[in-house]
Amino acid sequence: MNIILASTSTLYGGNYLEYLKDEISSLFKGIDEIIFIPYARPGGISHEEYTAKAATFFATLNIQVKGLHEFTQPEIALNEAKAYFTGGGNTFLLVKTLHELGLMNVLRDNVLGGKPYLGCSAGSNIGGLNMKTTNDMPIVYPPSFNCMGLVPFNINPHYLDPQPEIKHNGETRETRILEFLTQNQTKVIGLREGNWIRVKGNTISVEGTELTRVFENGQLPYEITPGTQLV
Amino acid sequence: MNIILASTSTLYGGNYLEYLKDEISSLFKGIDEIIFIPYARPGGISHEEYTAKAATFFATLNIQVKGLHEFTQPEIALNEAKAYFTGGGNTFLLVKTLHELGLMNVLRDNVLGGKPYLGCSAGSNIGGLNMKTTNDMPIVYPPSFNCMGLVPFNINPHYLDPQPEIKHNGETRETRILEFLTQNQTKVIGLREGNWIRVKGNTISVEGTELTRVFENGQLPYEITPGTQLV
Repeated sequence: MNIILASTSTLYGGNYLEYLKDEISSLFKGIDEIIFIPYARPGGISHEEYTAKAATFFATLNIQVKGLHEFTQPEIALNEAKAYFTGGGNTFLLVKTLHELGLMNVLRDNVLGGKPYLGCSAGSNIGGLNMKTTNDMPIVYPPSFNCMGLVPFNINPHYLDPQPEIKHNGETRETRILEFLTQNQTKVIGLREGNWIRVKGNTISVEGTELTRVFENGQLPYEITPGTQLV
Repeated sequence: MNIILASTSTLYGGNYLEYLKDEISSLFKGIDEIIFIPYARPGGISHEEYTAKAATFFATLNIQVKGLHEFTQPEIALNEAKAYFTGGGNTFLLVKTLHELGLMNVLRDNVLGGKPYLGCSAGSNIGGLNMKTTNDMPIVYPPSFNCMGLVPFNINPHYLDPQPEIKHNGETRETRILEFLTQNQTKVIGLREGNWIRVKGNTISVEGTELTRVFENGQLPYEITPGTQLV
């Protein structure tokens, strides 16, 4: 397998995918065209505009981008594609759309078969076992929370440390993930912005500039450094 | 109807339900016993401990509290109760439990019939049309997102204004609710901490100390003052 699951597409003050350029270049080495999956985007920009944004970045790597929404038979498009990029947005909308179109398992089988996959944010959530550790608002009701399970754990993208200066009683991210663990046995990788999961063959590691916070049943949360192997 | 749907149980630096004491006293006037619904709580404290916490507050109003989890036939307990309080926690867990036990509609029918209802946070979300504007993490998969519809709109509790000082690319609360509106026609009341919805008979108003932000299709979000009637 050959996969990047990134916390975010854009670092604070940076440009779209800029901080990941070298890693993306390595992921898609020898590939001249990818399919972009824009389904997570509920508004603000259209699927066409979102695909154009991705295409602008990938042009700097001499890679062409086609949006999956352009195809009348998206299952065939996925099976014939060379590689994939799923952009961020709302995970509920992304998962609902992929399940309703019957594409979640098609995409998974192609990626498990070795085709490169890049996900950011919601696109990374769907690489986990299920979407139960997304931060997104449940604006639509998906037929299932199950995802591709490209990695044997769940991801919490945009992992955010407690902000004690905010006088607000909403739960911290850590509290939410610990509540997930009261109902599930699944390990959760709290992926801070600047970090990503890298899968190469049978090796899964966490990469980037920040520490990564790991949550498991029966253990206190702990931090791992960039380069640490996860499985 | 006679209902309070509060953003939060506890203000920053305050004690549990303290800021709502006068309004709760008015809501439950003449009532000496209520049922507490603790199902939203996924961990941290047990249903027994959570009920005891509520009971400690209500003792100051000479109101006894029984936890719904204590009853082997919760449907009968709801039908025989005089009034209700649903505490906060995780809305997905609360809604899943109420649907699986067949209690969502039982509770709704009793409240529509005039029995007083107090909700905080997750307990307020279930007073809306559905739970699609909760802030909570989807740690479990409910059979439906539909809620009681005690009011003809959705609630976003713990409404939080953008925090531009945080260098983080997660969506703001406003962005999330506007994304909800791309997929739904339902009005959303962004209820800041310190505010609550008050239903008395056919009158619905927003009360408390803060402005309230309202989101509707085809309009820019706008603010209303405490005391404004919503319907």
